[in-house]
Amino acid sequence: MEERIELQIRTDLAMEARELYQEEKKQEIQGVAVEQEDIKDVTITRVEVLNDEAAKIMGKPKGSYITLESGALRRADADLKDEVSQLLAKELRALVGNKRHIKALVVGLGNWNVTPDALGPKVVSKVFVTRHLFQFYKKDKDDDLAEISAVSPGVMGTTGVETGEIIKGIVDNVRPDIVIAVDALASRKMERVNATIQISNTGISPGSGLGNKRKALNQENLGVPVIAIGVPTVVDAATMTNDTISMVIEAFTRQSNKGTEFYKMLQELKDDEKYSLIREILEPYNANVMVTPKDIDEVVLNLSQIIANGINIALHPGIDLKDVNRYIH
Amino acid sequence: MEERIELQIRTDLAMEARELYQEEKKQEIQGVAVEQEDIKDVTITRVEVLNDEAAKIMGKPKGSYITLESGALRRADADLKDEVSQLLAKELRALVGNKRHIKALVVGLGNWNVTPDALGPKVVSKVFVTRHLFQFYKKDKDDDLAEISAVSPGVMGTTGVETGEIIKGIVDNVRPDIVIAVDALASRKMERVNATIQISNTGISPGSGLGNKRKALNQENLGVPVIAIGVPTVVDAATMTNDTISMVIEAFTRQSNKGTEFYKMLQELKDDEKYSLIREILEPYNANVMVTPKDIDEVVLNLSQIIANGINIALHPGIDLKDVNRYIH
Amino acid sequence: MEERIELQIRTDLAMEARELYQEEKKQEIQGVAVEQEDIKDVTITRVEVLNDEAAKIMGKPKGSYITLESGALRRADADLKDEVSQLLAKELRALVGNKRHIKALVVGLGNWNVTPDALGPKVVSKVFVTRHLFQFYKKDKDDDLAEISAVSPGVMGTTGVETGEIIKGIVDNVRPDIVIAVDALASRKMERVNATIQISNTGISPGSGLGNKRKALNQENLGVPVIAIGVPTVVDAATMTNDTISMVIEAFTRQSNKGTEFYKMLQELKDDEKYSLIREILEPYNANVMVTPKDIDEVVLNLSQIIANGINIALHPGIDLKDVNRYIH
Amino acid sequence: MEERIELQIRTDLAMEARELYQEEKKQEIQGVAVEQEDIKDVTITRVEVLNDEAAKIMGKPKGSYITLESGALRRADADLKDEVSQLLAKELRALVGNKRHIKALVVGLGNWNVTPDALGPKVVSKVFVTRHLFQFYKKDKDDDLAEISAVSPGVMGTTGVETGEIIKGIVDNVRPDIVIAVDALASRKMERVNATIQISNTGISPGSGLGNKRKALNQENLGVPVIAIGVPTVVDAATMTNDTISMVIEAFTRQSNKGTEFYKMLQELKDDEKYSLIREILEPYNANVMVTPKDIDEVVLNLSQIIANGINIALHPGIDLKDVNRYIH
Repeated sequence: MEERIELQIRTDLAMEARELYQEEKKQEIQGVAVEQEDIKDVTITRVEVLNDEAAKIMGKPKGSYITLESGALRRADADLKDEVSQLLAKELRALVGNKRHIKALVVGLGNWNVTPDALGPKVVSKVFVTRHLFQFYKKDKDDDLAEISAVSPGVMGTTGVETGEIIKGIVDNVRPDIVIAVDALASRKMERVNATIQISNTGISPGSGLGNKRKALNQENLGVPVIAIGVPTVVDAATMTNDTISMVIEAFTRQSNKGTEFYKMLQELKDDEKYSLIREILEPYNANVMVTPKDIDEVVLNLSQIIANGINIALHPGIDLKDVNRYIH
Repeated sequence: MEERIELQIRTDLAMEARELYQEEKKQEIQGVAVEQEDIKDVTITRVEVLNDEAAKIMGKPKGSYITLESGALRRADADLKDEVSQLLAKELRALVGNKRHIKALVVGLGNWNVTPDALGPKVVSKVFVTRHLFQFYKKDKDDDLAEISAVSPGVMGTTGVETGEIIKGIVDNVRPDIVIAVDALASRKMERVNATIQISNTGISPGSGLGNKRKALNQENLGVPVIAIGVPTVVDAATMTNDTISMVIEAFTRQSNKGTEFYKMLQELKDDEKYSLIREILEPYNANVMVTPKDIDEVVLNLSQIIANGINIALHPGIDLKDVNRYIH
Repeated sequence: MEERIELQIRTDLAMEARELYQEEKKQEIQGVAVEQEDIKDVTITRVEVLNDEAAKIMGKPKGSYITLESGALRRADADLKDEVSQLLAKELRALVGNKRHIKALVVGLGNWNVTPDALGPKVVSKVFVTRHLFQFYKKDKDDDLAEISAVSPGVMGTTGVETGEIIKGIVDNVRPDIVIAVDALASRKMERVNATIQISNTGISPGSGLGNKRKALNQENLGVPVIAIGVPTVVDAATMTNDTISMVIEAFTRQSNKGTEFYKMLQELKDDEKYSLIREILEPYNANVMVTPKDIDEVVLNLSQIIANGINIALHPGIDLKDVNRYIH
Repeated sequence: MEERIELQIRTDLAMEARELYQEEKKQEIQGVAVEQEDIKDVTITRVEVLNDEAAKIMGKPKGSYITLESGALRRADADLKDEVSQLLAKELRALVGNKRHIKALVVGLGNWNVTPDALGPKVVSKVFVTRHLFQFYKKDKDDDLAEISAVSPGVMGTTGVETGEIIKGIVDNVRPDIVIAVDALASRKMERVNATIQISNTGISPGSGLGNKRKALNQENLGVPVIAIGVPTVVDAATMTNDTISMVIEAFTRQSNKGTEFYKMLQELKDDEKYSLIREILEPYNANVMVTPKDIDEVVLNLSQIIANGINIALHPGIDLKDVNRYIH
């Protein structure tokens, strides 16, 4: 997640990027296919970004973005957790390509010491790693276990190195078939925070800010496919402020008569003016604040278990839900 | 700090309660004396609530409220930290009454596991406790050391007991001359978060919500004077939203002509309407969110050291700044 | 657990106290009844100390001491964990007396910040507390839920107050029917560490050392029955050294001929001489060391879950194993 | 530190390897130069392993091993801490070769979640990293700051990858002039635990066990010089047991007459027999135990500050003791 200091509406979720476009333009983006499915308490949205133009509009690379959503995720309901782990495993397996004998490197992005950013490292701590056992027993493949390694490289502010460079080095030495990168995200809506898991096959850009030329974790840079798993754990203060301003304007609009000076003014309020308002409001906050649920510690713990279980079930052929609940922690 | 679910402008700082009144009424509260002093980088504001009427307006009990403010507090400047520790010790000593041979119980309010709420327990972990040594050596007084005990009782959500009841029980058994309670507070302005320390001789009410009839930690309930030390570490989402709405209205007001329908509407916007807007905006957030700096972990650590040093210097006659920096952690 | 600086063989387990006597005297203690039961992988030993003389020999008050033992406890086997939680709940319920509408205070003894001593506070963090809900809804009893409160008072070295005094104060204010105190213990055998849970109805003495006149948590001092739950998480270095010396002597004895000078010397080696040897060996260690498994962090986490589940099932009539595994964390 | 399951006397300290040889052979190792210096409360021992034969006897590669020892290190004496940081910086600078414009990668070996093994990661968290700033400002050198990066790669049991492979990958991408690796060590004497800092220019082997073919962090494998900084934080249980046996034998020897059967037996006791005794004693302990001070949490924190300060002063030309104490945390 790292530092994000820009004052603009940020979303790491493809479904929100599409939503933003729709809200503004009142139409679907050309070159984006969307399908939705409800399985019990979970809504699965599959967004396919099909061409470069759509990618540019979305601000997201071409590829598949799958979102599992359930408000119930925030509660400690073990049945739902199991269900989501299995749905996640299924989607993950489809993206990985149902290969056997996989060698995967799981990367936990983010900062251990900042609770809403610790999701990635927490998932890594619960992934069942086996690569050292393959090496020790000089095995190349196994019918029950995939060859899994896992690292939490830290963030640029504490390592002095771009996360992409560290992972590149490890990938070059460990030579996995695939990288699975887990990160905490920012959402534009608090209702999605801790209630949404996004999986994509397009990689991920750790952090932003500081010159914006951060090296992405993707196939182009690492030489192997990169699947990203992300959960929004915060809303940017800028986003929340922007939403507030929009709602105030909307409320005024409802209360004023069409055709009046005021009504026209509200309609004509430009994005520039909105941004300068946001800037003015957030300046004393240094822009370096986040909006986050008060029980964030517990929720991040829950989610990391769900995601680690999903990864363990998806990658290891011989491991199922019963195993992850009973023998792996 | 505990759960705060109400949708209203909350401030735990006496100087902000006064500020709010002034902003609305454009006048000073009758029965409130204020004086300000600048010592190097630190601004000291002393608010005296003199009578019951002023107390009612302020929403704060009669008594002294001293605020040390310095934006530099957020930086890791050891010289400033030392300076603030000494200023805090001086104010604290004045409130305690410059007695010798003090027996004090330091109480760390708040939840260890929620970073912005962990200030109190973190301070307690750095206070130099001695009561067990007095007991062991069967001493009643000492020229260098005060008789200090310290507890972090937890919060009602995790103990099932009102913090006031727990502390009452401990005070009845430990029999201190005075209680010093340390808590994380909410501010209405982000610029005060982690930049302000409030000391008062009026006690403190841990948490709110859930029926609002929480037992205060004060002389009336505990039977001994209670000095409260608090640092704002979060801004309530409701407060931030309210500020945003106010700034939007103000911006519109500047841009519209006096006498127009719109101008009038803005002027007449009632608090009720504002509150219903805030409620509408925060509803999807469950109201259970907080706005907090991203480096909150580090800042809480710094502040807990400053406050613990201040307490150690103020209470133990034979301990000075050099000692706390070198031999006590 | 707190500081233990004495150089003697320490055990907190009644079954070990009895074992020590048997090893030395080759006979059972008069006034001690023992029965053993094996239920799947768990061995249950029930030691009843029947009279004052037996209590003096054992160094343990009169009463019931029940030990659940299973080497498998150290592994992350969820089935076994469930089984032990239920066995623990059953024994606990028998000691509590199968009353309905219980008001219990659960006390987590020990130091959060020292891993092998954090068992008690970790259990407390997983107990389902309800007392505040009873108060809020002004209910006096409920058919599904007991009225539970829970505190982790810290240790004397960090509070300056004897734990017994703190708990006395809380009991006087909270007025539970019963106290359940959970603590990390020391064993004399590493094979029992993290593989044994002792329950007793005789209370507990938190820590020792510093004058040895520590106030016990028991019915006499608190005015209500005290059930103690303890798990050995360390072996004292003194104990381990003593065991080593005994094994060396035994090995030499086996290798030497009866009747020789050496054989006689080994037989006549007095406890005094052994103790002076232990002292000599441990002196450079400052006596302030502990012997503990390398994966102590994980094991303490597992055990705290098992014990908290056992307490939750035993006390709340409407909560069973399915609930604790699925909805309570 | 990782898993160490072998039953033999282990020491990571060169001075102890030499000591062991001397105790047994009553002579100095050929090809080892030793000098000692006392500076106030600190004893500096410089061991130079000069040729391959000496290296084989010592079980340590050729090179320089410098040990700073002070029992006072365990106390929270800020003056001593400053003194040791400066002595460490001086020795470090000498090993680095007093170059300007250094690019260094600091590696924290060990496991964050096991207190006595967390020294390396804790040091890394306090090192002043700058590489990202050099990159951002497109600077190649600076007169006040060295170009520092820092990582804590985790241990093989949690990553599935040999630490050496991970570091190799990072070194290949980050291209530092030098690697400084910090690790927690095992000592054979408790009196050295947390009282000793060893610096060497020969690299380090993270962990052992599991086939013993672990890749060392050294110039041969990484392509750049590797300086190792280590602090013993535990004594292996095997070592402690061995010491106990030796002391028992010595005590018996003192008490028995020369020429007796027993005296002869004691003299002739072979290492094999001793080892089988150790094995027998430690078997129920699973060999997977450690002996460690009870206040290990605090001591590791102190030591990590001392070492990080030493590294910060040694590498950054413009940073001195005053800066690290006041502005860097």
